[in-house]
Amino acid sequence: MEHRPWKTLRRQLLLDRSPWLRVMADDVELPDGRSVEGYLRLETNDHVVVVPQTADGRLIFLRSYKRGPDAIDLQPPAGMIEPGEAPAVAAERELLEETGYKAERWISLGRSVLGGNLGAGWAHLFLATGCRNVAAPDAGDLETAEMVLLTPDEARRRWRAGEFLQLGSVAALGLAFDRLQALGADALSGS
Amino acid sequence: MEHRPWKTLRRQLLLDRSPWLRVMADDVELPDGRSVEGYLRLETNDHVVVVPQTADGRLIFLRSYKRGPDAIDLQPPAGMIEPGEAPAVAAERELLEETGYKAERWISLGRSVLGGNLGAGWAHLFLATGCRNVAAPDAGDLETAEMVLLTPDEARRRWRAGEFLQLGSVAALGLAFDRLQALGADALSGS
Repeated sequence: MEHRPWKTLRRQLLLDRSPWLRVMADDVELPDGRSVEGYLRLETNDHVVVVPQTADGRLIFLRSYKRGPDAIDLQPPAGMIEPGEAPAVAAERELLEETGYKAERWISLGRSVLGGNLGAGWAHLFLATGCRNVAAPDAGDLETAEMVLLTPDEARRRWRAGEFLQLGSVAALGLAFDRLQALGADALSGS
Repeated sequence: MEHRPWKTLRRQLLLDRSPWLRVMADDVELPDGRSVEGYLRLETNDHVVVVPQTADGRLIFLRSYKRGPDAIDLQPPAGMIEPGEAPAVAAERELLEETGYKAERWISLGRSVLGGNLGAGWAHLFLATGCRNVAAPDAGDLETAEMVLLTPDEARRRWRAGEFLQLGSVAALGLAFDRLQALGADALSGS
């Protein structure tokens, strides 16, 4: 079957709260000729999610109140990509700012869009291994976050139990566990 | 460390495109006493993502143009939960509407919120096994979708390669592969 993109005939800006959010309404033409008015589209900055593993095999998480789930949540380091910044550069910057760690090796786990229909920016997912503490964290976020180090086994147990409340965490962790297993790095040495 | 939620002092409705989207601006008070004006919050209906496995072990996907990534994308069946509908009921309904299949067994894989900061509704993730075709698909979506059946191995290869463009697909598939492996159902019988 041949699949063709929709044609955007007209785009109207409904709400502009840059750099956090822009909401658009698109008049589109479907491949079969039908047209749809006001199909919504969200724009936010792209962001990165980084699953960091320390040199001794533990995974680094942050625990804080998050406004999205409106709950205390554990998550891998994550943050907005600055305008013009490459995703890999943003990943290094966010890891350093939020944890004070630098990685020996970076592995891209791909990218995906938040909303299948509405859009809303891309999440770029990374695994960072061989991480070592080089500075104090200095995230500058509104949330007060606490660093939590977990063994891969314990993190995977929580992931299976549905304890991670943000979709980006769930997606990045699944790919990271799979990659760590392939690298033979999914268990602590000696554990 | 003690983590406390933010207090919402005032909520202003900025944009109402119900049932698709509502955008709010919240004035909030942080636990340390600071206040922040106009912190954005998105509301959309919650949705379900279903990874369905047929009785002979294949995973069912849909291929179509998706407006979010603005690309042709492969994804598990997914859809909006109707007002008052239980997530498990929506999952059964969406699977039947989009594929014409009914499952023998349903396994919840948890739920997570789209936006860690902005909110935007919850994705409820499911694995559905022992699926059998009972009707013709009748999704009523704007997109013309094509059903694609893949072996778990082939689906996992594409997931590892970053070929799924929607964050909900990536999250649900990771958990589903893990669960299928635990069930011993991650390979086709005879393959």
